[in-house]
Amino acid sequence: MVQVAIMGYGTIGSGVAEILDQNADQIKKGCGQDVALKYVLDLRDFPGSPVEDKIVHDFQVIEQDPEVSVVVETMGGLNPAYPFVKASLLAGKHVVTSNKALVAAHGTELLAIAKEKNVNFFFEASVGGGIPIIRPLYRCLKGEKIVEITGILNGTTNYILSKMDKEGASFETVLKEAQALGYAERNPEADVEGYDTCRKIAILTAMATGKEVNYEDISTEGITKITDVDFKYADKLGTSVKLFGTSRMDGEEVHAWVAPVMIGKDHPLYAVNDVFNGIMVKGNMLGTSMFYGSGAGKLPTASAVIADIMEAVENADHHVVLGWSSERLAIADQKTSVHRYFVRVEGTGEELEKAAASTFGNAEVVKLDSLSDEFALLTGEMSEAAYADCAAALEKTAKIRQRIRAEF
Amino acid sequence: MVQVAIMGYGTIGSGVAEILDQNADQIKKGCGQDVALKYVLDLRDFPGSPVEDKIVHDFQVIEQDPEVSVVVETMGGLNPAYPFVKASLLAGKHVVTSNKALVAAHGTELLAIAKEKNVNFFFEASVGGGIPIIRPLYRCLKGEKIVEITGILNGTTNYILSKMDKEGASFETVLKEAQALGYAERNPEADVEGYDTCRKIAILTAMATGKEVNYEDISTEGITKITDVDFKYADKLGTSVKLFGTSRMDGEEVHAWVAPVMIGKDHPLYAVNDVFNGIMVKGNMLGTSMFYGSGAGKLPTASAVIADIMEAVENADHHVVLGWSSERLAIADQKTSVHRYFVRVEGTGEELEKAAASTFGNAEVVKLDSLSDEFALLTGEMSEAAYADCAAALEKTAKIRQRIRAEF
Repeated sequence: MVQVAIMGYGTIGSGVAEILDQNADQIKKGCGQDVALKYVLDLRDFPGSPVEDKIVHDFQVIEQDPEVSVVVETMGGLNPAYPFVKASLLAGKHVVTSNKALVAAHGTELLAIAKEKNVNFFFEASVGGGIPIIRPLYRCLKGEKIVEITGILNGTTNYILSKMDKEGASFETVLKEAQALGYAERNPEADVEGYDTCRKIAILTAMATGKEVNYEDISTEGITKITDVDFKYADKLGTSVKLFGTSRMDGEEVHAWVAPVMIGKDHPLYAVNDVFNGIMVKGNMLGTSMFYGSGAGKLPTASAVIADIMEAVENADHHVVLGWSSERLAIADQKTSVHRYFVRVEGTGEELEKAAASTFGNAEVVKLDSLSDEFALLTGEMSEAAYADCAAALEKTAKIRQRIRAEF
Repeated sequence: MVQVAIMGYGTIGSGVAEILDQNADQIKKGCGQDVALKYVLDLRDFPGSPVEDKIVHDFQVIEQDPEVSVVVETMGGLNPAYPFVKASLLAGKHVVTSNKALVAAHGTELLAIAKEKNVNFFFEASVGGGIPIIRPLYRCLKGEKIVEITGILNGTTNYILSKMDKEGASFETVLKEAQALGYAERNPEADVEGYDTCRKIAILTAMATGKEVNYEDISTEGITKITDVDFKYADKLGTSVKLFGTSRMDGEEVHAWVAPVMIGKDHPLYAVNDVFNGIMVKGNMLGTSMFYGSGAGKLPTASAVIADIMEAVENADHHVVLGWSSERLAIADQKTSVHRYFVRVEGTGEELEKAAASTFGNAEVVKLDSLSDEFALLTGEMSEAAYADCAAALEKTAKIRQRIRAEF
């Protein structure tokens, strides 16, 4: 029998306890032995809950119990998650976490400790919730040279953008609705400013390259400036706007960034709507593949934790090689990143349109009947530096209202 | 160093040789050692090809060479693939195959031999080409109770249906086009009659249930009767028609079938177009996930073979438990399978429409301005047996032109 401790009895931690109970037969069949919950570490008591008699308040109980071989960290944040996880690994226990902040900030060190102690540090649930993506990267695609990973990695922002697209509502209106439904937090900054997506694409980029990624190196733009007017143009163009975390490894340099992107119906991520997540992976031999599912939520995320627990049980005396080394990946200057751009310009008149289009090197002009005081441009592909030069030139005589990267 | 033999230097076999060469560094990094191609078994010689000096014509060379630890079978068909694979396993070699016919017909026996000889029998490439699906089922979702697997598993038929949808062309026209482009074979029966999909959903059902599935138990209907008129209705309804292989394990019984299905835009497989494949998996905790990618093609399929080779190398002295036992799964009578139905009825007039709709228990009537001699019905959910009774009742006075299962 394998004994497990869960640290943090919040949404995900309680989901893990629930699946350990409800799918016990399935898990036993897969592991060849029972997997039992021994402790739940939390500051709170949970009288009347199914784990009432398993609650402990002192981490040392877990750390010092040799019967506990797998520790699940579902506390979130860095403190005390980081010292507890580190201590658990140093005590020779496998650790499974759903905590992207922890993995993005301390993954390199924790992976190294796991290797040294011949235990496992797994974090499938830290990216894409229930979607299998970390394991496919090291189990299924490790013979591939990954050339691109692009993901819709945050359910809150995807819900907001999907609603804006479908209903023509403003960002502010939909955000309030999402907060009322519990899809967005009261302080939504981590989601809507793209910080959550940034940590997740950092983890995926490190998995794909085998090198440490400092998430602070990743240029990050959120969705707070996306408006209902943008979606009117998107509708006319047969496109939508999604928040992407992207890394591209197709040349000498690695580009990685988070930004809203206007995409067409042919993009594999176009149909990823509402709170769902999708992750597109391009390999040099495989071509394009895509993984889709529930990017958050109690049971889907807990299901990914369970898969990690089962892999830890299967490899109880064997460190599975995954993750990355301490060699730091150099992320290219975002100014060298190449896209098309959707640009909204204030003003009207054929002369202005022609001048603006020519400033961006023969950009396509897009007009909406319902808007009489502006028009939009769709540029060809150019680096962000080149875009900035063109935009500066145009802004000597006109005002740019919006700029969204476009890939269609 | 690991030495590999490839049996069958056709499209996929030559792709495997190509990736072993081109991604050698990546593969070495993943395996911790070189993976080298020693033999290629084929009836033909390939003078001037990169494998010219590795060609052998006698299987016994491979069987009797103790240096060869992994045998790749990319011949297709059952003979001599089956005896060669069996002999390879009995000789203590790992076998990796892309051959769905072999796995569907002899998987149970080959898995048992692999277990007995403590080697591995892997077949990721047999379903969904380059899409990781077999491995996610046993690595990522084995703690889940799988309640449904539905896949677009055949690129040829998906290409044909996508083209019919986009261009309004007839089945015959698009089939000819697909044949000219090499997307469909001269004898397209295995694809268009659903036989290929049937073997693949049989393999997935066996993976999900852990029991042997006889593919002949799976009710199989192809796409040859789908017409351009059906897509006119689909367009009006905001739906499309896709060839699904489905198995549902949500009750006491397992339903499994292959058939064209009319689905709406909200279905995760709606956006899977052209030669791409997509596989939706529903777990009792995970909810809905979907895997998308190139379901066929030289390099994508070979990439899946490479992943299996690498897993065999990693588990060189360890039989990885996957697949199914020899216990036969009972597939429920297809008559008890429940769907909605899209039904086209010959004739016009309010009286006939009302009578027909009421025969199916208040079905919705759908009419196209462009068609004056027929109308369609959309029924509620009913079993195939109940549908057959209603259809027989209606056919006493009217003619049914088409019946397509509908899920939206």
